[in-house]
Amino acid sequence: MDNQLHLISDGSFSGEHLQIVKRIHRNIDYLHIREKNKTAKDILDILEALEGIGFPLAKVIVNDRTDIAVMKQCTGVQLAYHSPSIPLVKGSFPSLRAGKSVHSLSEAKQGQQDGADYLLYGHVYPSASKPNQQPRGLAELREITGMLSTPVFAIGGITPERTKEVIEAGASGVAVMSGVWQADNPVQAVTAFRQALNTWKGG
Amino acid sequence: MDNQLHLISDGSFSGEHLQIVKRIHRNIDYLHIREKNKTAKDILDILEALEGIGFPLAKVIVNDRTDIAVMKQCTGVQLAYHSPSIPLVKGSFPSLRAGKSVHSLSEAKQGQQDGADYLLYGHVYPSASKPNQQPRGLAELREITGMLSTPVFAIGGITPERTKEVIEAGASGVAVMSGVWQADNPVQAVTAFRQALNTWKGG
Repeated sequence: MDNQLHLISDGSFSGEHLQIVKRIHRNIDYLHIREKNKTAKDILDILEALEGIGFPLAKVIVNDRTDIAVMKQCTGVQLAYHSPSIPLVKGSFPSLRAGKSVHSLSEAKQGQQDGADYLLYGHVYPSASKPNQQPRGLAELREITGMLSTPVFAIGGITPERTKEVIEAGASGVAVMSGVWQADNPVQAVTAFRQALNTWKGG
Repeated sequence: MDNQLHLISDGSFSGEHLQIVKRIHRNIDYLHIREKNKTAKDILDILEALEGIGFPLAKVIVNDRTDIAVMKQCTGVQLAYHSPSIPLVKGSFPSLRAGKSVHSLSEAKQGQQDGADYLLYGHVYPSASKPNQQPRGLAELREITGMLSTPVFAIGGITPERTKEVIEAGASGVAVMSGVWQADNPVQAVTAFRQALNTWKGG
């Protein structure tokens, strides 16, 4: 499997974000709609806007709201600690991809045991979106990817430059938020991530 | 169909509420879990607690979260303006009951046209939960129930004493929140609603 690039929305998805997505969409594998303060209808409006620019919902992963993912035939749902469990989701929606956000080896083991299709692990580096939390570093990432067969994507403070060591630590790709949305040039940032991911093929 | 009593949770569901539900559950037709500020996991915890006291989830309607209703085999979902549309919900989950909250004749007509299984119309009387909004009164309720075949339940400031005129205006029952939770004796309040609903059989 090629290394994947997941782009996570930053909670303030707007027309500006849509214009960026329009220009980068061939270079990302998945777009996560993670808009915790928006209503279901707001999220559906975003999905319709994505359809409107020709972005395939088969590349969209919806945060927490399994119903929206199913109703709009998105590829999957991203589950956090406050979400329904993987077994509950898979029990009703077995064909939906279900990813779990994890922050430790034990959570990662549990995620694999529960049947997660993939894990988002982080945050690996200091991250603008988690200013008060200690980054977890590469050692635990390496331990997780060494022990588990479930694909793990690294999240948190990832840059194109750091992609090499993350992939060498066994990640199957990276998930990025501020590294794209807050970049001076988001389109160039995505290209740089894509190139780095294509260059480093894993350890 | 007998007139129905829907009890709506008040956004602060706790162990105290659970104890009340335990004592009244044979006297209510449906319990709506409407806990807008709670996470999916919180709502699932409430559903598990309800199962724990023997309250059948076949009598539970979940607000907004179709996924939770499906995963826990609750009877239905209650949809508001910020929720997915009835056609979207029914398209993916045809066997789930879908109720729509409406506030006018035109919204009610739209709800029926969209395939809602029932409508909650309100608020009919001055309501503690909508202090700044003008109550809609009985005239529009009468107009709605006269024009539509979809069952309509009246909500907003309903008391056992007001139940008669609501049923005579064509409602198929009432939905109650503070009339039960804020009653001096919630168990007696439910009994009084039940008796009023059984007495007045509609116009």
